[in-house]
Amino acid sequence: MYVILGSTGYLGSYFLDHLSRKGETCRGISRREVDYTDRGTLLSFLREHRPRFLINAAGYTGKPNVDACESEKEECLFGNAVLPGRIRSVCEELGISWGHVSSGCIYSGRKSNGEGWSEEDEPNFSFRSGPCSFYSGTKALGEEVLKGASNCYIWRLRIPFNEEGSPRNYLQKLLHYSNLLEAENSISHIDEYVESCLASFTNECEPGIYNLTNLGSITTSQVVKWIQEEGVSDQKFNFFKNEEEFMNKAAITPRSNCVLDTAKSEQNGIAMRPVEEAVRDSLRKMRKRGGFSTNIQLKID
Amino acid sequence: MYVILGSTGYLGSYFLDHLSRKGETCRGISRREVDYTDRGTLLSFLREHRPRFLINAAGYTGKPNVDACESEKEECLFGNAVLPGRIRSVCEELGISWGHVSSGCIYSGRKSNGEGWSEEDEPNFSFRSGPCSFYSGTKALGEEVLKGASNCYIWRLRIPFNEEGSPRNYLQKLLHYSNLLEAENSISHIDEYVESCLASFTNECEPGIYNLTNLGSITTSQVVKWIQEEGVSDQKFNFFKNEEEFMNKAAITPRSNCVLDTAKSEQNGIAMRPVEEAVRDSLRKMRKRGGFSTNIQLKID
Repeated sequence: MYVILGSTGYLGSYFLDHLSRKGETCRGISRREVDYTDRGTLLSFLREHRPRFLINAAGYTGKPNVDACESEKEECLFGNAVLPGRIRSVCEELGISWGHVSSGCIYSGRKSNGEGWSEEDEPNFSFRSGPCSFYSGTKALGEEVLKGASNCYIWRLRIPFNEEGSPRNYLQKLLHYSNLLEAENSISHIDEYVESCLASFTNECEPGIYNLTNLGSITTSQVVKWIQEEGVSDQKFNFFKNEEEFMNKAAITPRSNCVLDTAKSEQNGIAMRPVEEAVRDSLRKMRKRGGFSTNIQLKID
Repeated sequence: MYVILGSTGYLGSYFLDHLSRKGETCRGISRREVDYTDRGTLLSFLREHRPRFLINAAGYTGKPNVDACESEKEECLFGNAVLPGRIRSVCEELGISWGHVSSGCIYSGRKSNGEGWSEEDEPNFSFRSGPCSFYSGTKALGEEVLKGASNCYIWRLRIPFNEEGSPRNYLQKLLHYSNLLEAENSISHIDEYVESCLASFTNECEPGIYNLTNLGSITTSQVVKWIQEEGVSDQKFNFFKNEEEFMNKAAITPRSNCVLDTAKSEQNGIAMRPVEEAVRDSLRKMRKRGGFSTNIQLKID
């Protein structure tokens, strides 16, 4: 049996869905149902249910976007840095293997030699190596709290996307923002990400950190071009002049824009598709379905 | 009525003691008795008891010393950075004034112009401005979480001492360590610190941060000289050659050694005695009582 913490959240619902479709028994729990943030409650729950594997898809992302974390510091620190530590301690006590949804947002740009950031590199968009958003700071602290954890997979996601209508979907966001920021990024097809996470465990990869993004990287204008080429939208896309204008007009805290190295996931047989293939595939599915939902309230993430 | 969170801890017990001696009604609570780390529990407790003032003397210091925090990151982050945020949120909801025991250990050395660090200065021994210990990092985050809090006093303590036998007493430590590290520091006479904290509220000082250390600073060798001059001990004191030897032989994580500026507490009428007067007074009381307890197990803090 799989247990999924935070199963009503964006990520958690995909884990629940994919596992169910595979015919796996799984128990998704929300904090309201079982307060897994309380060490004793989590310990009793897991003692009783003895899952084969636990997935921590709970975390604090800020609504409508990471700017909110700047004024909700306590909840953000607790959800992203303390909670993973509590889960670690309970899982280690019970000998349960588990995986933690982490993020590549603890980096900025590329390494000075031009390569993407590998699992070995220290974060450079964190409290310890600023500037950073409070959100990114707490995600980096979360990984620090998990350093040396037993039987723990740390799955780094970056900018989720697929063909579905959700305000968290990157492609949807691009279509709805009035202005876009040109930047280079690694991005993660959400369904492939979830499959790779699960495969890391079922294929018995060594526990540890894995960068799980599609191979290669994108720039915003490249994706806009693909959107146009795939006939998803003929709208005019406007761009901020530069990051300064973006920060002045649309953001409170700086965003991570970064490229991750995926060599480790390739070597472990859990790599995701090349980024252009994954994005175009999502766009085609969207177009078949009649385009993106437009009645979703979106704010800059 | 005063409520003291963490009243069975070192600091908390002094608050309880001083308030009781003043004839104030106070209710000290330990986490075991009322789990004040749980937002709902704290809210109900304070709704019922409606204190005039709340003191947060709870925090995670690491036993036997701050090195322990390097391997107990979750508890340390929770106790020092998340908990203050929860207390803030509950106190703001109920309109309760409160004070938080903070620490000057978020600084290192003096400012580049030779002055001590004031309440306005950003920490330079923190996650955001390293190097730092994990403990100091969490204390600085705790102050960040409290930025802009309503009716909240942040009382910065540094290296507590007095005449009593306790392994937390700086003077006691000096007498028991086999080797000392020469360093310049601000230090706080614990009873005076508690009196100044309470006075900040009863004298209606403006809420905010206060550096509450004795006026001036000490060096380790100066205090050793005073110990000898006051006849408290004629033992031979050994010093590490330098900080490098100290780090190699006796410590896991770097220690904060720093000087705080006390101008704000002086201007607000809550200043403490000059440091030499306070230390010599403690030493004389110790000698009268027949010297320091020697049957206390001490490790380097």
